[in-house]
Amino acid sequence: MEQVYRLIMSCPDQRGIVAKVSQFIAKHNGSILEANHHTDQRSNWFFMRHEITASSLPFGLETFKKEFAVIAQGLDMTWHVSDSQQKHRLILMCSKQSHCVADLLNRWHSGDLDCDIPCVISNHPDLEGLVAWYGIPFHHVPMGDDKAAHFAKVSAIIEQYQAQTIVLARYMQILPQAVCQQYAGRIINIHHSFLPSFAGAKPYHQAFDRGVKLIGATCHYVTEDLDEGPIIEQDVARISHRMQPEDMVRLGKDVEKLVLARGIHMHLEDRVIIHNSKTIILD
Amino acid sequence: MEQVYRLIMSCPDQRGIVAKVSQFIAKHNGSILEANHHTDQRSNWFFMRHEITASSLPFGLETFKKEFAVIAQGLDMTWHVSDSQQKHRLILMCSKQSHCVADLLNRWHSGDLDCDIPCVISNHPDLEGLVAWYGIPFHHVPMGDDKAAHFAKVSAIIEQYQAQTIVLARYMQILPQAVCQQYAGRIINIHHSFLPSFAGAKPYHQAFDRGVKLIGATCHYVTEDLDEGPIIEQDVARISHRMQPEDMVRLGKDVEKLVLARGIHMHLEDRVIIHNSKTIILD
Amino acid sequence: MEQVYRLIMSCPDQRGIVAKVSQFIAKHNGSILEANHHTDQRSNWFFMRHEITASSLPFGLETFKKEFAVIAQGLDMTWHVSDSQQKHRLILMCSKQSHCVADLLNRWHSGDLDCDIPCVISNHPDLEGLVAWYGIPFHHVPMGDDKAAHFAKVSAIIEQYQAQTIVLARYMQILPQAVCQQYAGRIINIHHSFLPSFAGAKPYHQAFDRGVKLIGATCHYVTEDLDEGPIIEQDVARISHRMQPEDMVRLGKDVEKLVLARGIHMHLEDRVIIHNSKTIILD
Amino acid sequence: MEQVYRLIMSCPDQRGIVAKVSQFIAKHNGSILEANHHTDQRSNWFFMRHEITASSLPFGLETFKKEFAVIAQGLDMTWHVSDSQQKHRLILMCSKQSHCVADLLNRWHSGDLDCDIPCVISNHPDLEGLVAWYGIPFHHVPMGDDKAAHFAKVSAIIEQYQAQTIVLARYMQILPQAVCQQYAGRIINIHHSFLPSFAGAKPYHQAFDRGVKLIGATCHYVTEDLDEGPIIEQDVARISHRMQPEDMVRLGKDVEKLVLARGIHMHLEDRVIIHNSKTIILD
Repeated sequence: MEQVYRLIMSCPDQRGIVAKVSQFIAKHNGSILEANHHTDQRSNWFFMRHEITASSLPFGLETFKKEFAVIAQGLDMTWHVSDSQQKHRLILMCSKQSHCVADLLNRWHSGDLDCDIPCVISNHPDLEGLVAWYGIPFHHVPMGDDKAAHFAKVSAIIEQYQAQTIVLARYMQILPQAVCQQYAGRIINIHHSFLPSFAGAKPYHQAFDRGVKLIGATCHYVTEDLDEGPIIEQDVARISHRMQPEDMVRLGKDVEKLVLARGIHMHLEDRVIIHNSKTIILD
Repeated sequence: MEQVYRLIMSCPDQRGIVAKVSQFIAKHNGSILEANHHTDQRSNWFFMRHEITASSLPFGLETFKKEFAVIAQGLDMTWHVSDSQQKHRLILMCSKQSHCVADLLNRWHSGDLDCDIPCVISNHPDLEGLVAWYGIPFHHVPMGDDKAAHFAKVSAIIEQYQAQTIVLARYMQILPQAVCQQYAGRIINIHHSFLPSFAGAKPYHQAFDRGVKLIGATCHYVTEDLDEGPIIEQDVARISHRMQPEDMVRLGKDVEKLVLARGIHMHLEDRVIIHNSKTIILD
Repeated sequence: MEQVYRLIMSCPDQRGIVAKVSQFIAKHNGSILEANHHTDQRSNWFFMRHEITASSLPFGLETFKKEFAVIAQGLDMTWHVSDSQQKHRLILMCSKQSHCVADLLNRWHSGDLDCDIPCVISNHPDLEGLVAWYGIPFHHVPMGDDKAAHFAKVSAIIEQYQAQTIVLARYMQILPQAVCQQYAGRIINIHHSFLPSFAGAKPYHQAFDRGVKLIGATCHYVTEDLDEGPIIEQDVARISHRMQPEDMVRLGKDVEKLVLARGIHMHLEDRVIIHNSKTIILD
Repeated sequence: MEQVYRLIMSCPDQRGIVAKVSQFIAKHNGSILEANHHTDQRSNWFFMRHEITASSLPFGLETFKKEFAVIAQGLDMTWHVSDSQQKHRLILMCSKQSHCVADLLNRWHSGDLDCDIPCVISNHPDLEGLVAWYGIPFHHVPMGDDKAAHFAKVSAIIEQYQAQTIVLARYMQILPQAVCQQYAGRIINIHHSFLPSFAGAKPYHQAFDRGVKLIGATCHYVTEDLDEGPIIEQDVARISHRMQPEDMVRLGKDVEKLVLARGIHMHLEDRVIIHNSKTIILD
């Protein structure tokens, strides 16, 4: 795949933003591969994402940043630019269940998930062999009585690998507030229900008790408020009265792994912008 | 369509139920067109639905009932048998919005909704002309200050037409407890969210505020607990960050009308059995 | 809704197109409400759609056209600009089946389909009453032995009303080549299968014979090659071995009417660009 | 899970079949866990599937067979009974692509796919390591110039393991007629299109060229007629004009692996009956 720079911006809306940005790109003879923008009319806020062919520009990423900063400052932008050839470092955290981890690792191994996975962290050793087969370091950090100690170790590993994103691939623990804040917008979780229905524990059992006709899964950014973070992706599957909670668990795995993979995919391509408590997906 | 008797039964589970029932049918040379059963293992309860060709039996509905009562009593059954050629009397209640009513009336007029619709009741006059075009009486019962008086009139109309089922096709009022109890299992509502998410008022605005990626609709039986009744059918539609609540309202109408029509269809074919707070759909 | 101008362009791709267009808009202080573009890399062709708030511009539609023509010419563009407040004139053609027409008319009447429907044309009188209720002229043009005469009359009606788009809402006749050519890109059809599966007659019976597990519908522009025109929208519904072709017909109606309505909706908002034998949907 | 006997029958339809079978079960005090039947009215053929708790019966599988044979013979039945605790032997065949194999092996390893997988056969060595990690023998049988020799070896391996079912998990070769006949009803394939659309080679490229708005996958039994066998399961995913064939390939993998897994799941639970060129799914 061709090397591209992805330029993601948000700022208070005003006239002429697109003109200024596209003028900047055209001036440097940049070739726009893809562009999306969105204006949130309630907050009067503007969002834009560009993919620009790197080879079309006369300079590299650092000069791009320096040059663009002038425009960005004038428009009061929050922005960043990323290079498609600098692999994003994404760490997986898991527990005992393998469906999400096995699915993500197979995508990564097949070249369908474009990132580095420097390690997998788990509070249980069950998935060590599977992860090892893919040649990825596996860190078993048991959850003893001292939850703070557990998360101190986890944070240290995250820092050691300089992870940019942490994916909770059915990691069944609630993160401490401090961790949520430290990695705000960088922790992605898969919750096994169609939120806001059935937040919290045992959502399939809750779904069974309520007698819903569809079950779902939700991929969202983690915030301090459990299962309340900005939603990236959701989907559902049809169930019937014949299904026991265990059948829903089995069927739900397929929804979970797909929804998580789709959410990560959009996150890795810098298509997701968090705005207040929601996401804007520029695809 | 061939005349069939639909035999719906539920009872405490025990061995030999199917044998006894099918023996009864075979003894009278009955031809089974369709049969479904289900055992709820938690409550140890058995459910069965048969479609039997009327012309294959040597007797009519009344004798059928008398003969079968003997078996039913021995098995401690709750049961009923209905004749596909005796049209079910179904009343629609609506307010100002036309999408569900227009959709249901078109199905009925096309022969795709097999029932009688003796009248439509509304607290607003807006849909009178549309209903009149289909040749169906329209009762405008305004909701004044006296809610009790309103519902007394509504109940009187229901009784007058001997309605078997009342469909709230976006009738925007909360029914009094007494009405819910009087017509328990006979009032079908369409709620414009994927329950249990966004119960209550303005669900699309709630969905907008939460930032979900799918909106939904739920067809359920009405009970005294608002939006808590047994669910018959649900479905969803994908939305994006570009959509304002008004867009969701427009898009949601399609989900509402389809989910309601599917729920009614199963109810009219006697495929829905309420068991505790859930439904069993024998299709 | 606010008045907007919709600017739709396509041209050979080159650098600086977005800059030139957005510069033009910014120079006139135009406020961009929505913008999408796409580059087809195989044909090296560029496509763009803008929604610009009319009130933000210092001139009206005619001056806009004159001013923009200069830019368009320099970029070798095919383009047009439409005013959201000039209602699109859309004619429906139908036969005996009512589900699509009834659905579209209800959307139109509810304000959810933003266009004028100056008349409905049918080769059968069945839907006259329904159409009349909505206050729309109904032209019954029987299909006698002389097919050419039939279509001469149909064309005359289309011209009389200066229809911009003709929707075949389950109009069951094959249009003559000359009509297809005359209204190229302006005739929308709903085919009751998931094309390219089951083109031609009786698709539900074909689907039944093949034993597929999903049925579908396809909304497409009509070309001289039957069921081969550019696809705008498709969707499917799940079926089972229990369903006879008649059940599929009934179930399929729901897919047909939704797929057709979605396709028309995108067409009316000028979101659909035909490129070779395919469509680009700028939404 | 409780041990059950699954009794699958089909025969010319006549009155009293259900009575005779349920009488037989009741006589031996059998407890029916699940029962489904279906009558195909066109061919006047009857199909039934029962799950009977093994512990409720006074005899084992062999006696069951001997006793039931009497009834079966009287009704001219094609039938078999299987024991849920005798693991079905299912062989996977693959090529280079891993998504289906990796997904199925993970399901099997997690206990969600209830069968034995005695070996995996491939014409390429690429997936050997992955398969080995799961502790399953991997047979690399290269496809040289001599296709007959290749398939002779493949057949020998199938016989050696006494495989009951062969799953072509993206095995990219066309099977010889003799192999199709020998294992009729026992070879399951996943085709990467929504059949009958895009049979044959490179279906995603065909889909791209046609400009469809949904892509799909089809799980079917293999017959001598390529991509014409009885369909077990199908599903689709939405695509857009932005997607190149490579994007469809990536997206399509998710549909393929889910559709294949669902098809196999129903096959393993003896829910699929082939009737003429179609399947009846008793779920």
